[in-house]
Amino acid sequence: MKATIRDVAKLAGVSISTVSRVMNSPQSVVESKRRKVLEAVEQLSYQPNSFARGLIYRKSFTLGLLIPDIENMYYAGIIRGMQEACNKLGYSLMICNTDRDSARLLSYIDTFHEKQVDGIVFASDRMSPEYYEKLSAYRIPVVMLSSHSDEFEIPSIEVDDEAAAYDAVKYLIGLGHQKIAMMGFNDVNSVSGPPRLKGYLRALSDGGIDAASLLGRVKHAAHYFEHAYEAAHELFMEYPDTTAVFCVADEFAMGTISYLKDQGVSVPEQVSVIGFDNIRMAGIYIPKLTTIAQPTFELGYRSAEKLHELITTGQTEIMREKLLHKLIIRESAGTVS
Amino acid sequence: MKATIRDVAKLAGVSISTVSRVMNSPQSVVESKRRKVLEAVEQLSYQPNSFARGLIYRKSFTLGLLIPDIENMYYAGIIRGMQEACNKLGYSLMICNTDRDSARLLSYIDTFHEKQVDGIVFASDRMSPEYYEKLSAYRIPVVMLSSHSDEFEIPSIEVDDEAAAYDAVKYLIGLGHQKIAMMGFNDVNSVSGPPRLKGYLRALSDGGIDAASLLGRVKHAAHYFEHAYEAAHELFMEYPDTTAVFCVADEFAMGTISYLKDQGVSVPEQVSVIGFDNIRMAGIYIPKLTTIAQPTFELGYRSAEKLHELITTGQTEIMREKLLHKLIIRESAGTVS
Repeated sequence: MKATIRDVAKLAGVSISTVSRVMNSPQSVVESKRRKVLEAVEQLSYQPNSFARGLIYRKSFTLGLLIPDIENMYYAGIIRGMQEACNKLGYSLMICNTDRDSARLLSYIDTFHEKQVDGIVFASDRMSPEYYEKLSAYRIPVVMLSSHSDEFEIPSIEVDDEAAAYDAVKYLIGLGHQKIAMMGFNDVNSVSGPPRLKGYLRALSDGGIDAASLLGRVKHAAHYFEHAYEAAHELFMEYPDTTAVFCVADEFAMGTISYLKDQGVSVPEQVSVIGFDNIRMAGIYIPKLTTIAQPTFELGYRSAEKLHELITTGQTEIMREKLLHKLIIRESAGTVS
Repeated sequence: MKATIRDVAKLAGVSISTVSRVMNSPQSVVESKRRKVLEAVEQLSYQPNSFARGLIYRKSFTLGLLIPDIENMYYAGIIRGMQEACNKLGYSLMICNTDRDSARLLSYIDTFHEKQVDGIVFASDRMSPEYYEKLSAYRIPVVMLSSHSDEFEIPSIEVDDEAAAYDAVKYLIGLGHQKIAMMGFNDVNSVSGPPRLKGYLRALSDGGIDAASLLGRVKHAAHYFEHAYEAAHELFMEYPDTTAVFCVADEFAMGTISYLKDQGVSVPEQVSVIGFDNIRMAGIYIPKLTTIAQPTFELGYRSAEKLHELITTGQTEIMREKLLHKLIIRESAGTVS
């Protein structure tokens, strides 16, 4: 017969709540008692199952991650960081891919609730009232990652998108570029889209460039390089004198470069392209991408730590946390010829 | 107060087991009763939670996916396919990333058991006796994906690695190449590694090339392009007359091309490179990769269907299923100059 928490408590000669504390926050139990409990656990091959655990401890030691698009390489680094923090903190990590589908996202919140995850990291999406209502009703702790909410009080962690875009465009201006285009997200719900456009425009103004005259060169693409490839076609058909393109994603930069290459235009000799994210592929593309690095590993790692803080203390020290971006200079942007 | 399955049965005027059947296999319940149950469910806002569901139905409507490396772009297509099938079949999909760490994999099997997933897709890894023992003890249905087991009776789905490698190398020989190197996996536990090496050697022999004389040109890399970049350096230092490289992963092909490009060697004009997998990046790399496509979407989709078949019927019609690979000709391989 399977050992229960009662059996463990009896064998160790301690109370059930002491066993529970050893399983949940071992540092709160004195060494001598802790050792007795762990020996009893070992001896009885005691393994709390999630039903019992959920009922007794109200903790499942599992965190959930909701991401909008598993095919987007941006999340690989995020997940790696989150996984690392989960290992350190003793959580399992369960990932669900919403495919930017609101019904699916809602259904995954239900699933996470049913599976009694201790908390959810909600990545890159806008927090709609509908999502918020459900999360609140379930009382599931949530941290927003690479996103934030102006309407709801939810802890978040991200980079400063406006400043990051500013730095990218300022770098291009420093290389002598004036006719600088932008390739942004066409997702109307994009959280990072508006601040990146703002950063682009502010850098142009600060650089003495008439931002209004360049607005036609602000193109949009959906999430993949194919879309960026098409948007690049449109851009260069309309504005062939464009000498540099600021892309809000490395995939967009790759799509743009691929288009230019297919047209016989060389990067960075004839046109400079700068990306955003610094995904793992950025360093191996040809040419290697100059880009704005997001600290994806740290973003993932900190989001799990922050969620743990929220779960265990009911609050987070910093409500809206920003991590630093960094300009990575490689090969895809150069001086105007 | 929350409605229970009893409340639903009472209101609908049916037995509890009928309610259970409507939730689990609606097609087994006559239309009139089904409608009554669904109306009662609606009226009471009845939502089975996983505790109750687990106890009453012994089904959680969740599938688990164990993948070795979330950063490997190969899994993006797999996950998309699996997700699609899960949507169709009414499952939630939970993904756990093992990082090729055996302790973590075992711990995720525990987690999946605790969360009462209905079944697990076990991707790309070797089925060790230890894993098998745990899965059997928990009686969790398992399908192996892009892997198989010779020791254990486990349904699996994958491509024919030997034939796929053969086709890649045969294509290079057809272009006139003789000094064909190979870049394989250095993972001793790799399931697909040995058959791909076999296919390479068989194609050489069939092409009238002395395979033994080329064995020194079989290099190995770990999982990422950085490793392939280094292995390419080693290869071309030792065998500068190599005119073509068969890579067992698109990332290896990209690492090889990146190395050659940094040495001023042009692909495919001076050296041809062929990849494997046809990940989403293959078509946008510069040059675009000629590669062996794995039907990743279908592999993922079929793995979920197969697992569903196993869960609902206790068996699968086909034990070892193989899907077809396909040679995709793009730009990275050409005739010998």
